[in-house]
Amino acid sequence: MMAKRLIAEFLGTAWLVLGGCGSAVLAATFPEVGIGLAGVSLAFGLTVLTMAYSIGHVSGCHLNPAVSVGLGAGGRFSASDLPGYIAAQVSGAIFGAGVLYAIASGTPDFSLAGGFASNGFGEHSPGGYSQGAAFVAEVAMTFAFLFVIMGATHGSAPKGFAPIAIGLCRTLIHLVSIPVTNTSVNPARSTGPALFVGGWALQQLWLFWVAPLIGGALGGVAYRLLSPDMPTPTEVSGN
Amino acid sequence: MMAKRLIAEFLGTAWLVLGGCGSAVLAATFPEVGIGLAGVSLAFGLTVLTMAYSIGHVSGCHLNPAVSVGLGAGGRFSASDLPGYIAAQVSGAIFGAGVLYAIASGTPDFSLAGGFASNGFGEHSPGGYSQGAAFVAEVAMTFAFLFVIMGATHGSAPKGFAPIAIGLCRTLIHLVSIPVTNTSVNPARSTGPALFVGGWALQQLWLFWVAPLIGGALGGVAYRLLSPDMPTPTEVSGN
Amino acid sequence: MMAKRLIAEFLGTAWLVLGGCGSAVLAATFPEVGIGLAGVSLAFGLTVLTMAYSIGHVSGCHLNPAVSVGLGAGGRFSASDLPGYIAAQVSGAIFGAGVLYAIASGTPDFSLAGGFASNGFGEHSPGGYSQGAAFVAEVAMTFAFLFVIMGATHGSAPKGFAPIAIGLCRTLIHLVSIPVTNTSVNPARSTGPALFVGGWALQQLWLFWVAPLIGGALGGVAYRLLSPDMPTPTEVSGN
Amino acid sequence: MMAKRLIAEFLGTAWLVLGGCGSAVLAATFPEVGIGLAGVSLAFGLTVLTMAYSIGHVSGCHLNPAVSVGLGAGGRFSASDLPGYIAAQVSGAIFGAGVLYAIASGTPDFSLAGGFASNGFGEHSPGGYSQGAAFVAEVAMTFAFLFVIMGATHGSAPKGFAPIAIGLCRTLIHLVSIPVTNTSVNPARSTGPALFVGGWALQQLWLFWVAPLIGGALGGVAYRLLSPDMPTPTEVSGN
Repeated sequence: MMAKRLIAEFLGTAWLVLGGCGSAVLAATFPEVGIGLAGVSLAFGLTVLTMAYSIGHVSGCHLNPAVSVGLGAGGRFSASDLPGYIAAQVSGAIFGAGVLYAIASGTPDFSLAGGFASNGFGEHSPGGYSQGAAFVAEVAMTFAFLFVIMGATHGSAPKGFAPIAIGLCRTLIHLVSIPVTNTSVNPARSTGPALFVGGWALQQLWLFWVAPLIGGALGGVAYRLLSPDMPTPTEVSGN
Repeated sequence: MMAKRLIAEFLGTAWLVLGGCGSAVLAATFPEVGIGLAGVSLAFGLTVLTMAYSIGHVSGCHLNPAVSVGLGAGGRFSASDLPGYIAAQVSGAIFGAGVLYAIASGTPDFSLAGGFASNGFGEHSPGGYSQGAAFVAEVAMTFAFLFVIMGATHGSAPKGFAPIAIGLCRTLIHLVSIPVTNTSVNPARSTGPALFVGGWALQQLWLFWVAPLIGGALGGVAYRLLSPDMPTPTEVSGN
Repeated sequence: MMAKRLIAEFLGTAWLVLGGCGSAVLAATFPEVGIGLAGVSLAFGLTVLTMAYSIGHVSGCHLNPAVSVGLGAGGRFSASDLPGYIAAQVSGAIFGAGVLYAIASGTPDFSLAGGFASNGFGEHSPGGYSQGAAFVAEVAMTFAFLFVIMGATHGSAPKGFAPIAIGLCRTLIHLVSIPVTNTSVNPARSTGPALFVGGWALQQLWLFWVAPLIGGALGGVAYRLLSPDMPTPTEVSGN
Repeated sequence: MMAKRLIAEFLGTAWLVLGGCGSAVLAATFPEVGIGLAGVSLAFGLTVLTMAYSIGHVSGCHLNPAVSVGLGAGGRFSASDLPGYIAAQVSGAIFGAGVLYAIASGTPDFSLAGGFASNGFGEHSPGGYSQGAAFVAEVAMTFAFLFVIMGATHGSAPKGFAPIAIGLCRTLIHLVSIPVTNTSVNPARSTGPALFVGGWALQQLWLFWVAPLIGGALGGVAYRLLSPDMPTPTEVSGN
């Protein structure tokens, strides 16, 4: 039933933003014992892993417009379901960012000027990476993400392991690319915090829609060309 | 047999406190090479993962009153079993805290004034978060925890993977919320250390019963509404 | 065939010492980017996880006299096989320590006076923990280790996951107890480095035989009493 | 079909270099919150884990000449397929290094003089380890890697778990040996960055072909002698 699938996508994407961005905002730079970029990377990946086991059989657990578009380009998702999925994902991300704001603002040290885990490039890249480098990074990382998703959910892949492969792929992507763009590979994840921060975060938001969607679509197509035959569909696929 | 189930819950919850709180008390701030909040997060999650594979088929491996209540609210656990389970969990947590005290007090640097991994808010929150923020965080985190538990043990989820999803969900919750409340989401885990520390830890203990129980019950109900049909019960479920 | 089982135990225990102690000696305190106690904990656990998938079907992958004794006490391993297993494990640990020495001594900064990852208590405990605390810690940790091993390899546990549960249990044990004793829970692992360091390491070695063997035997018995019925044997069991 | 297998090896090895070396170049030493050697170790392992679930059923997911040679020596891979596999792996590694260069050079702080994650010994070893120590380390680590790969893909090992065992074995190897050689165990991974750095990196490249190939071949042979009987082939094997 479509309504339940959209509720699952809404709640799952809220968890992705609350858990992933939450670890960055609340815990990354805690004095002396902060979790750092490695802890944030693990947190983002685990939001995907945990929800994939929980709602994979309900909605496919995309939680990400680039994943829905990429699976569509790869022949695994119906184009007619895209608008609903993307709306649910973006709404969930905004809701998750709102819950995070309610928690994070409960300490006097908090300020949205810290970025609230928004994505950025140029002077808003954590490591000062240019717009071009940011674009290449987001395309390449989302390409690889969809390539892994398509492969790990292929009918010939071991059954039941896809959430581990996909969640830890998200962790890996963060381990590499947080310094470049703060890591998006997910336009919904980028939109949630940007709406709270405004200004530069909204002005740069376009890149975190365009690059992940391009990379995701290319990744879906590439895997489909490589391995078109799919004996039986597996658990993480919307239907 | 109920006696064996209660012994399993007792020992499992003791392990959760000895392993989770133990990592915080003994290793988090060890000079230069301490494990930090990321290491503590991993430790808490692994207490759940390891015990779920070990006693999941005995007692369901709840180790947590909020899990028992949440599974009850979700229609997966009998209300008549709640009192015994909660008593075993709280007793086990106190026993685990006692073993930890026996070890931790074996070095001259130890003092209960360090908090002994108790949960707190306001001036006893690690990051100075208000009571309101603490309440929201504990409700939201326990909601998500039960949502993941209900989903990963659903009859349509991949078989055998629930301990990984649930254990790593606990890790994720800690990665986000240690700075806010030192992370409870488990009233038994909060009660064990608080009895040793006394004073403020006991005065603030109410929140770490009320908020996790509310969040857990809401999470159980939410998942039940989303996905009521459950073809076959799986390994991590009390019966 | 017994010879192949013993060769597997020899090589597996060598890997445990080379990988686990190696991470501590070579990488834990590397300037600025060292892996710390959390990295060492992960390394020790992964030696067990990787070998359990590789030789679990050959020898049961004990790699540890306390595991062999504990499984014996739990009714899962024949007493007549103990001497051969323990001899292979101790020999392998010494060989692994030798390979580590060959590598570690290849830089001018190396000195055995750094401890070479030996276990100790009192003034040789990393955090200055007393002999009594060290004894309690080693008994409690090995008890829990065997309890998890017995449970995760029980016929009612999910199939194929035992190496994950057992390996990550070893990681958890290290996350808690490195500051206390540098973590043994394995007399063979303690013996290898101690033979190279000599002096205090050999004088304190008795505790790292006695406490793990007691804890392991108690853990094996405890689980057997809790859950004696074992429908079918699973992959990680010597036979 | 051979063409698809080679494309899979090309893309998979590119991901290994972009993800593994990328985490080292971009994120390891990021001020205050850098991922350190533990994060780099996790990233390298996850490149293997994610690709093994994605293309294991296409090409066997070797991504490494030492793995292809070792599996050949172990009787699991045809010698006639070696040249194509190795060519695809080396090409992919160079392509991955090129994408990484395009991203990394997008910040003014970048310089190839930082090493670009190349492997080295003597004065180019991160910890100043001698050529002899480097050789022993690379042989021993690749031996263990192939031993684990052969075992985890053996017909008697649990099905579907090999990518976890193999990927996390790669993580373990890095946790131990980054200080010694920056960790190769993979001649293709060494060749990619060395071509960009030139000079010393190319002069020392021979060791990172010779030692891994020797260690890999020995590991493949050792496991074959230990456990020759292989009931049924499993998912991660080229065919």
